[in-house]
Amino acid sequence: MSNFKSIGKDTKKIDALSLATGQPMFVDDVSFPDTLQIKLLYSPHAHAIIEDIDTSEAEKYPGVKMVLTYKNTPHVPHTTAGQGWPEPSPYDTWMFNEKVKFVGDRVAAVAAETEEQAAEALKLIKVKYKVLPAILDPEDAMKDGAPVIHDEPWITGAYNPKKNLAAHIDIRVGDVEKGFKESDVVVEETFETQYAQHTPIEPHVTITYLDEYSRLVIRTSTQVPFHVRRIVAQALQIPVQKIRVIKPRIGGGFGTKQEIILEEICSFVTLKTGRPARILYTREEEFISARTRHPFKVKVKIGAKKDGMLHAISLYALSNTGAYGTHGLTVASNAGSKTLPLYNKAENVEFVSDIVYTNMPVAGAYRGYGATQGYAALEQAIDMVAEKLGMDPWELRKKNHIKAGETSPIFRALGEGREGVTQYIQSCALDELLEKGAKEIGWLEKYGRPKRNGSKVRGVGMSIHMQGSGIPLIDMGAATLKMNEDGSFNLLYGGTDIGTGLDTVAAQIVAETLGIKPDQVIVYASDTDLTPFDVGAYASSGTFVSGGAVLKAALKVREQILEVAREKFGEADSKDYILEDGKVISPKSGKSITLSEIAYDTLYVKNQHQIGAAGSFVSPYSPPPFAVHFVEIEVDEETGEIKPIKYVAAVDCGVPINPNLVKGQIIGALVNGIGYALTEEYHFTSSGRMTNPNFMDYKIPSTRDLPEIKVILAETYEPTGPYGAKSVAEININGPIPAIGNALHDALGIRLHRSPYTPERVLEAIRKSKEKKLEPVDPE
Amino acid sequence: MSNFKSIGKDTKKIDALSLATGQPMFVDDVSFPDTLQIKLLYSPHAHAIIEDIDTSEAEKYPGVKMVLTYKNTPHVPHTTAGQGWPEPSPYDTWMFNEKVKFVGDRVAAVAAETEEQAAEALKLIKVKYKVLPAILDPEDAMKDGAPVIHDEPWITGAYNPKKNLAAHIDIRVGDVEKGFKESDVVVEETFETQYAQHTPIEPHVTITYLDEYSRLVIRTSTQVPFHVRRIVAQALQIPVQKIRVIKPRIGGGFGTKQEIILEEICSFVTLKTGRPARILYTREEEFISARTRHPFKVKVKIGAKKDGMLHAISLYALSNTGAYGTHGLTVASNAGSKTLPLYNKAENVEFVSDIVYTNMPVAGAYRGYGATQGYAALEQAIDMVAEKLGMDPWELRKKNHIKAGETSPIFRALGEGREGVTQYIQSCALDELLEKGAKEIGWLEKYGRPKRNGSKVRGVGMSIHMQGSGIPLIDMGAATLKMNEDGSFNLLYGGTDIGTGLDTVAAQIVAETLGIKPDQVIVYASDTDLTPFDVGAYASSGTFVSGGAVLKAALKVREQILEVAREKFGEADSKDYILEDGKVISPKSGKSITLSEIAYDTLYVKNQHQIGAAGSFVSPYSPPPFAVHFVEIEVDEETGEIKPIKYVAAVDCGVPINPNLVKGQIIGALVNGIGYALTEEYHFTSSGRMTNPNFMDYKIPSTRDLPEIKVILAETYEPTGPYGAKSVAEININGPIPAIGNALHDALGIRLHRSPYTPERVLEAIRKSKEKKLEPVDPE
Repeated sequence: MSNFKSIGKDTKKIDALSLATGQPMFVDDVSFPDTLQIKLLYSPHAHAIIEDIDTSEAEKYPGVKMVLTYKNTPHVPHTTAGQGWPEPSPYDTWMFNEKVKFVGDRVAAVAAETEEQAAEALKLIKVKYKVLPAILDPEDAMKDGAPVIHDEPWITGAYNPKKNLAAHIDIRVGDVEKGFKESDVVVEETFETQYAQHTPIEPHVTITYLDEYSRLVIRTSTQVPFHVRRIVAQALQIPVQKIRVIKPRIGGGFGTKQEIILEEICSFVTLKTGRPARILYTREEEFISARTRHPFKVKVKIGAKKDGMLHAISLYALSNTGAYGTHGLTVASNAGSKTLPLYNKAENVEFVSDIVYTNMPVAGAYRGYGATQGYAALEQAIDMVAEKLGMDPWELRKKNHIKAGETSPIFRALGEGREGVTQYIQSCALDELLEKGAKEIGWLEKYGRPKRNGSKVRGVGMSIHMQGSGIPLIDMGAATLKMNEDGSFNLLYGGTDIGTGLDTVAAQIVAETLGIKPDQVIVYASDTDLTPFDVGAYASSGTFVSGGAVLKAALKVREQILEVAREKFGEADSKDYILEDGKVISPKSGKSITLSEIAYDTLYVKNQHQIGAAGSFVSPYSPPPFAVHFVEIEVDEETGEIKPIKYVAAVDCGVPINPNLVKGQIIGALVNGIGYALTEEYHFTSSGRMTNPNFMDYKIPSTRDLPEIKVILAETYEPTGPYGAKSVAEININGPIPAIGNALHDALGIRLHRSPYTPERVLEAIRKSKEKKLEPVDPE
Repeated sequence: MSNFKSIGKDTKKIDALSLATGQPMFVDDVSFPDTLQIKLLYSPHAHAIIEDIDTSEAEKYPGVKMVLTYKNTPHVPHTTAGQGWPEPSPYDTWMFNEKVKFVGDRVAAVAAETEEQAAEALKLIKVKYKVLPAILDPEDAMKDGAPVIHDEPWITGAYNPKKNLAAHIDIRVGDVEKGFKESDVVVEETFETQYAQHTPIEPHVTITYLDEYSRLVIRTSTQVPFHVRRIVAQALQIPVQKIRVIKPRIGGGFGTKQEIILEEICSFVTLKTGRPARILYTREEEFISARTRHPFKVKVKIGAKKDGMLHAISLYALSNTGAYGTHGLTVASNAGSKTLPLYNKAENVEFVSDIVYTNMPVAGAYRGYGATQGYAALEQAIDMVAEKLGMDPWELRKKNHIKAGETSPIFRALGEGREGVTQYIQSCALDELLEKGAKEIGWLEKYGRPKRNGSKVRGVGMSIHMQGSGIPLIDMGAATLKMNEDGSFNLLYGGTDIGTGLDTVAAQIVAETLGIKPDQVIVYASDTDLTPFDVGAYASSGTFVSGGAVLKAALKVREQILEVAREKFGEADSKDYILEDGKVISPKSGKSITLSEIAYDTLYVKNQHQIGAAGSFVSPYSPPPFAVHFVEIEVDEETGEIKPIKYVAAVDCGVPINPNLVKGQIIGALVNGIGYALTEEYHFTSSGRMTNPNFMDYKIPSTRDLPEIKVILAETYEPTGPYGAKSVAEININGPIPAIGNALHDALGIRLHRSPYTPERVLEAIRKSKEKKLEPVDPE
């Protein structure tokens, strides 16, 4: 590994200078003079039938080109979740529906010459609603006789006895009931997580236009260009060949850009009018009408033996998917599949989940993707088991975590359904991370010894995590590479850099393989016409899957280069050539040739061909990255405020292709998770309307809210990943809720069962704890 | 062949609708608000040293951003000819030179905010010239003691005893002197062809800008995007990786767009200022400063036996390349290599050429590429041989032309220099064409029987021709193809459609191979970043070379599709599947599956990969197309005007992939050739200044100048070409001069030795012929 020339180096992001100097490269940086501006009208009711809608006045408003409602748009049931095919999501959405299902559901759209005209015209649309009883709570949705939100027969069919079930999961290994009976201690707790938002800097934005061949071009802020193409084609019933999707630089995804929510409306307007069209969400629209994180209620039950070995685990997740199903099934599934294998010593494991519709905002993909909600419960329950056993939770975790060479009951169960492919762990640095992280935070000195300074008390907490690297046997990437006369290369690949630096990582992989500099790789990506297929950026798949495809193409090119060099050097069987500094070197004979010479020779002189190759990658495995989080907090008993002092994220993501970008991902996810743990939360009226859709009332962390953050990277090598890499995009969002929750317990002996840990909730818990002494209390 | 579904069908050009509706797609349809407009200052002298140049006033002019001269631009010798590497052209050009070498040579350029400002500022540049003796005639250039035009040592070196030689060719097979002695009749004649221009509807135009990564983008009207990239990189001394060349739709090439004449200046301004820059030639600039056809003086000597068999041919071409060498060598080479093999029965053959510099406009690549000038002489001399033998020239040609299965002395000589690869003719329909064409024009009834009507006399003439299909072992094309969910395909290929319809031909080749419709192929081409390498559009290479590459990629994709179908059908060894209407059909079992089903299955369900492949093509052969031309003219003895009445072009271009486009190419070339034969000509002052640089004074044919044109396509199949195709782009420009010249002789018994055949020259020849009786007369 120490021989790497490009891998493991902090290459500057290939778009760093452009971004820093404000070059026009985002979706909304492109403008056409005749663009129609689209504004949307949203339902003020959580559940209602549109009995009548009168758009005549709006249509007459100056500048208005068209008004869209359910009356004049295609009724094609589809999903907004760009995940794959066959779709794991229910087909419960169409462009406009006469039944609205949450406050923020779409009622109509106006396309006009200016945004102002569109906004004014919206006010002239007269809608007569028949308001229906609304379900705002997922437990209510499960009750017999509850109003049915989706009455489409393919959703409420015989297989769905609870009519508001969007999906259901049931995985059982061993015998948990017996397991609990055999256990010496059993902990059973319920934890709730809240509605929260991705809040990308760049909201959803789409610009559509017809190219000179009258093909529809969708320039959009998306994580999944190829899924956008497929789903828009489906929703509008046109062939994919008529659509080109381009993702330029985009201002963050975090999962919400895996949802296709604006593209179909914008495309429809362009196809109907022949004119460019644009929708740019306001921040308020982003909050009320885009996607959120699924709120979960997780009941976790853990049985352990006296020696600290876990023996049985049951996890039940009630997931609120809101008004539409989208990612409901797969998000909930990760609450079990990305958490329970971590404690693989327990052979009796059960994971059950109900994913229910409510008349609430629509939840979708969100970094962490269910694992975050699962860990919020699991990793606090683990601390409670340790407490019951009288063990240090750090020791308990050291005893029970999965190790290299091992599989887990859940992996085995999942493997059965996947043509017998079972995940075995090939790289796992948890032991190293546990040691280094504990040392960094001062665990042995601090844990169990809260430090008081006036009303302020310090405590430490920890949690451990795994995630995946793409979805095995589903996530697929592809790349093509061609060589130019100066020994530079054009890389066309399907990968989707959503600000993560994936394009830079791809360039580094090529550079390492071919002995050149990363800036000699010209990267073009995320264009459905021009790049090969790739599922897109989600499930922490970028480096592992898309990068894996890039490596495959680069290795083929390397072989072609070596073949030319062997012939040039007259060394037919040589296998030990070195590629570096743009040259092929034969260490034995001392001969060398530049890549530029090879390129000129093959392009123009010998054989007349361009050195180049295509590679594609799909893996039966999804090697998990691992993370160990330690946090020291200071909680003020008088104000209830929790202030994180120091956060240690010790991470095993395999070989970090670009350590600086890896740290960016880790810190970004941590900040995201700290906001989720402490402040970020949707507030609703009793009729389901969000009351804080803005950054004044919905608090995301700023730099002054953040602790000192220390990142520790493990020295590992994942043999199934490109140059030893695993993923790192999501895992670190999982830690802050349980680690801070555990630290709060360390400091004050209280435990909150609902996030975020706001001063109000902390104060309430302190009050109840004083009333009830040391019994753990849930303030809600 | 009758089974073809797409090949041989008149598919509408894929850009037809866009072109007809004026969609923005040409170079100059893209504009940036901050574009710098560039105007050029040209030398008023044919040969001079710039002793001093003062740009200070120009630089102060409002709106002027920069003024370029030889003082502040790179001095990197290169060639403007985009041909290949190693360059066959002398490195005799740089951006600006202190020595100017023709009237129209570049002296300076101004980049300003508006074109008007740039033009005004040009007038403020003060240039002090030291005027040198100029060489305006190529024979003067060869004289001892002639002024040396290029004094660069690598041009005037020891190998160049005649200091103004740009190149020299000498090919000899057998013994021509002996051959002439053994002949019963010998004809020796000299024919001269004139300066003429390509006159593309769209003049040269280039727009350059920096993309968001500060890479230089050159959007240009070119036939050779990859050569533009390489040569601009060389001229500006930057790596090719910093350059992207895009050719959008362009308004004609005809060879002049194979010259890189604006790109380097425009690029330099953009690199220096960071701003977009644009140069659009006026028609006058196009005439005086772009490229022309090489004027030739061809001495041809033919010896024949009494039985009509040709026995020895000698052809000497003196080519005037003007002030720079560019395509001089290769154009002259084609005057022999594309003409003499046609008469392969003569075993004693000699082809010698001198390509000389003069202080005249720069000649470059021009449709026909030397063959036109060669045939102007050869095919009139053949008629004169027939006359001497008392034979019908049609009979003489039937006896002597090359046939399928044969090679020729010149092919053998060329093959020796090319690693022993000798061209054998695999398809040749000359016999069929000679019969059908003669019948269509009424040859046997009309030849030798001129028909008089007052002062107007009708006569018939003919000529026969071959050309090539790309340059063997040099021209190379490549393509990649990928399959979408709806069974459509993205084709990325390097080919360069310069208005010919090549992109449509490529789509038809894919469609035929995969059993789909051509509009299911989404074609993207001519972008050095995104498409694979291709040498570009010249040498009639499009269909044969680029199309050949497309076929290779399509055949690989077909095999992948069949593989999936075999597995689906459970018919492992089946080889007889039919691909049609977007389906794979097993005739034996009756099973079928759509390409869309196969695409969904491979992309999402099975193996997770995208069906797709890359193909590249280079051929050791350049199968010649053949053409037989017959023309009936009416010449007015009083006015001297020649009016073509009917023109028959009988053409063997192999299988016509798209007969309509083939006819377009044939008629387009004919019209081009008729203009060259009758009216198109540069006029010069005695100091080398062109006096007619506009369409009022330089007459190109309009529809009312044209005869009835009858196209006959042979039924042939070229086994080395895609679906039996050969090329058709150039060959038909070669006929009009000799065919009309022969018809003039048939009508009036006179023969002009210099084109074009203007009324003045015809009248002069009539006058001299009356003086000297029937002896052939050259009026000049």
